[in-house]
Amino acid sequence: MNLKELSSAELHSRYDELKKQYDDYKNLSLSLNMARGKPGSDQLDLSNEMLDPAILSGFRASDGTEVRNYGVLDGIPECKSLFAGILGVPEKNIIVFGNASLTIMYDYIAQCMIFGAGDGPWAGKKIKFLCPVPGYDRHFAILEHFGIEMINIPMNEDGPDMDFIEEYIRDESVKGVFCVPMYSNPSGITYSDETVKRFAALKPVAKDFRVIWDNAYCVHHIKDKKDRLLNIFAEAEKNGTEDFFIEVTSTSKISFPGAGVSALAASDSNIASIKKRMSVQTIGYDKINQLRHAGYFVNADGVDAHMKKHAAILRPKFEIVLNAFEKNLGGKGIAEWTDPNGGYFISLDVLPGCAKRTVELCKNAGVTLTGAGATFPYGKDPLDRNIRIAPTFPSVDELKKAVEILCVCVELSALEKLLNK
Amino acid sequence: MNLKELSSAELHSRYDELKKQYDDYKNLSLSLNMARGKPGSDQLDLSNEMLDPAILSGFRASDGTEVRNYGVLDGIPECKSLFAGILGVPEKNIIVFGNASLTIMYDYIAQCMIFGAGDGPWAGKKIKFLCPVPGYDRHFAILEHFGIEMINIPMNEDGPDMDFIEEYIRDESVKGVFCVPMYSNPSGITYSDETVKRFAALKPVAKDFRVIWDNAYCVHHIKDKKDRLLNIFAEAEKNGTEDFFIEVTSTSKISFPGAGVSALAASDSNIASIKKRMSVQTIGYDKINQLRHAGYFVNADGVDAHMKKHAAILRPKFEIVLNAFEKNLGGKGIAEWTDPNGGYFISLDVLPGCAKRTVELCKNAGVTLTGAGATFPYGKDPLDRNIRIAPTFPSVDELKKAVEILCVCVELSALEKLLNK
Repeated sequence: MNLKELSSAELHSRYDELKKQYDDYKNLSLSLNMARGKPGSDQLDLSNEMLDPAILSGFRASDGTEVRNYGVLDGIPECKSLFAGILGVPEKNIIVFGNASLTIMYDYIAQCMIFGAGDGPWAGKKIKFLCPVPGYDRHFAILEHFGIEMINIPMNEDGPDMDFIEEYIRDESVKGVFCVPMYSNPSGITYSDETVKRFAALKPVAKDFRVIWDNAYCVHHIKDKKDRLLNIFAEAEKNGTEDFFIEVTSTSKISFPGAGVSALAASDSNIASIKKRMSVQTIGYDKINQLRHAGYFVNADGVDAHMKKHAAILRPKFEIVLNAFEKNLGGKGIAEWTDPNGGYFISLDVLPGCAKRTVELCKNAGVTLTGAGATFPYGKDPLDRNIRIAPTFPSVDELKKAVEILCVCVELSALEKLLNK
Repeated sequence: MNLKELSSAELHSRYDELKKQYDDYKNLSLSLNMARGKPGSDQLDLSNEMLDPAILSGFRASDGTEVRNYGVLDGIPECKSLFAGILGVPEKNIIVFGNASLTIMYDYIAQCMIFGAGDGPWAGKKIKFLCPVPGYDRHFAILEHFGIEMINIPMNEDGPDMDFIEEYIRDESVKGVFCVPMYSNPSGITYSDETVKRFAALKPVAKDFRVIWDNAYCVHHIKDKKDRLLNIFAEAEKNGTEDFFIEVTSTSKISFPGAGVSALAASDSNIASIKKRMSVQTIGYDKINQLRHAGYFVNADGVDAHMKKHAAILRPKFEIVLNAFEKNLGGKGIAEWTDPNGGYFISLDVLPGCAKRTVELCKNAGVTLTGAGATFPYGKDPLDRNIRIAPTFPSVDELKKAVEILCVCVELSALEKLLNK
C-alpha cells in the first residue's frame, strides 16, 4: 500500500495505530545507537593476535631498521609494500602515517592553506571545493574549519555527476573535490570506470587543483559480489594529471580504529613536497605498529582474507536492516535505500522534509541515528531527506530492535507530513 | 699546558704529533655516530614488557572505554593522569596526543599561522620568535619552515638571559619563545627559580604571545643529584599569564622513541581552542598505546623508577665523554664543556672558528657529530664554536673510541687556528 494513495481516514487510522506502537517503544527506555561507522567488538577481536609481541620478530624491519628507535620518515619497507599492494601503486608513491587518514587529509589542506599546492597559499583567498552529496561529514568539517566554500555535487548511480564537476572547474577558485570513490560514505556507490576516467581527464583552470580521493573502503567488501574501482593513478598518468590526486586509506576498519595505520598515495612531485613538510613535523610515525600490521597481514592477499572475516560478521547486520526496510517500508512510497556491496553504511532517503523529524522521533524512542543533514556540507540537506544508517556497531539483537523502531519513525513522520500534522 | 702559551715551535711539534695520530685513526675506516639523541638498544629493552598484551586488561580504560575502537579526543583518563602527575598540572589541563611532541609543536604553530592565538592569523604578518642559544635544531626548523624570524637569546648558567627577553617583547611582532627549560638541549642547563618566575611575569606587547615550554627531559635525570624546575603554570597563575605557555613532553626517551605517547599541558582557554581544532583533525589518538603506557608505568613514581634504570645505563656513557675531555682537553685553554645532571647531551664549546673544522675532521676520521651550527637558528653559530655531543646511542666501546678521536680533532683544529694553517 502506497501511503500516498490512501484516503485521509485510512491515513488517520494508520497514524493512530503507529503512534500507539511508537509510544510503547518509548516506554521501553531503550538506548540503541546506529550513528557512527564503528566496528562491533566481535570485529575488533578478529585482530587481537596482532598484539602478540612475537609478531615483532626482533624489532627489526626488513631493511634492518630498529623499529623501537627514532627514524624512518615515510614508513618501514614492508608496511609501504602492504599499502602499495592494497592501492596498486609503486612503493615510492606511498607514505605511511599515524593512526588516522583523517589527520592526513586535515594536514594536507592545512599545508595548502599555509604554503599552497604549487600556486601560492590558499589562506586569505576565496577557495571552493566540490562535494559530492550525500557525503562524509568529517570531510565537510575540515573544509568548513578552513573557511573553504563547499559546493554540492549530486551523486548518480555511478558516482558524482561529472557534468557538474567539469563545469564548476572552469572557475579558478574551485581548487578541488573531496570524495570517497569506493563504497562511498554513505551511499555505498562505487565510481564507474567512466567516472574515474572523467576524473582523470579533468582540466581545471586552477593549477593547484587537488582531489582528495579518500579510499577508506577499498577492501571493505560485504557481499561475494565485489565492486571494482579503476586505479586513479593509472588513469591519471594517461592524462598527465597525477598531481591532482591525493589518495588516502587506513587500516582503521581492518585492524583497530584509532590504533591502526594510515597511508597516502600521490605523485612523485606531491610525495616530495609532503615529505619536505613532514621532515619538520615529525621524526617518524609509530614503526612498532607498522611492523605489527605488516607482520600480521603480510600483503594485500592477507588483508583480503582478513576482510572476509569482517564480511561474515557484517553481512547479517546489513541484511537485518535491508530486510526490515523491505518488510516495513517496501511499496509504501515513503522511502528509498541503498543495498551496497561493501562499506559501512546504508543510505536512507525518506520523504522530503521528513529526515530531521525521523531522527528526532528515533531519538525520543531511544535510538540514536547520525544527525539529519550530517551527510551534507554545513549540515544542510536541502531536501531534508537523507539519513545515514550505520548497522555495524550494535549487536544483532539491538540492531533488530533499533531498525524496527526506525521503520516506525520513518512511516510516522511520513504520515505526519501527509496529514499536515 | 695551555696551548696559547706554547711557542710556535712547540705548537708545530704538537701539531705533527697529533696529525700522525689522526692519520692513524683515519686508516681504521671507523664508522661511529654521536650525532643524535637516540637511546641505545639496551635502553629500548628496558620497556619491552610494555608490549605484553596482558597489560591491556580487557582493552578497557578505567572509565570503561574500549581502547581498540574509535573515540576519546584528549586521551584515556589513566594516561591523562600519568602526564598530569609528571607535569604537575590538573588532568583537565592535559591533552594526550600521538607519538611525537614535535608534531604537537608543529601543529600548534601551524594553527597560529592559519587561525592565530587570539589576535588574528600569523600568516602574512611579520612574526618573530626568541630562541635561547645554543638550542634544539628541530625547534628552529619549525620556525624557519613557517617563515618566522628567529632572534638569538644568549644562555647563562641559569637559563636564557631574561634581560634580553624582557626587552625584545616590547616589539609587538615578537610572538613567542621556543625553549627547553629542564636539562636543556644541548647545554643541560635547568632554568633557575628566578628565570621561571621572570618567564611567568613577562608582559609582552603581543596579546597572542606564546612560550613553547618543551619539557622533553623533565624526568631524565642522570645523576643522583637531580635538577628541579619550578612549575611554570603555578607561577603563571600568580601573574595571570597561563595563556602564554604551551608545555609539551613525551615518553619518547622513557619508553620507545617513535612509539611512545606525547602530551600537552595548557590553560583552560588554550585547551579548549586546541580541542576545537583537534575535533576536526582526528577522531582520537592511539588509545591502545595509551593504555599500554599507563598500565606499565601506573603513575609518575613508576616513571621515576623506570628512569633510574635509564640513568644507570647513561651515567657511564656521560662519564666516558667527560673523563676523556678532562684528560685530553683539560687545561689546554681550547675547549669548555657542560657536565649536566640530566638530559641527553653534553655541549662542547671549542675555540671560536673551530667548530665546523672539528666536525669535518671527525667526519673524515669516521666519527659523525651533529653538524656545527645545528644548535643555532638558520644553522649559523655566530662564533662557530658550539658542538652538541650525544653520548647515548653508541656502545661503551664505540663511545670510548669516538670521543678519543673527537679530542684529537678538537685539539688539531685549535692548532690549525693557532698556527694559521
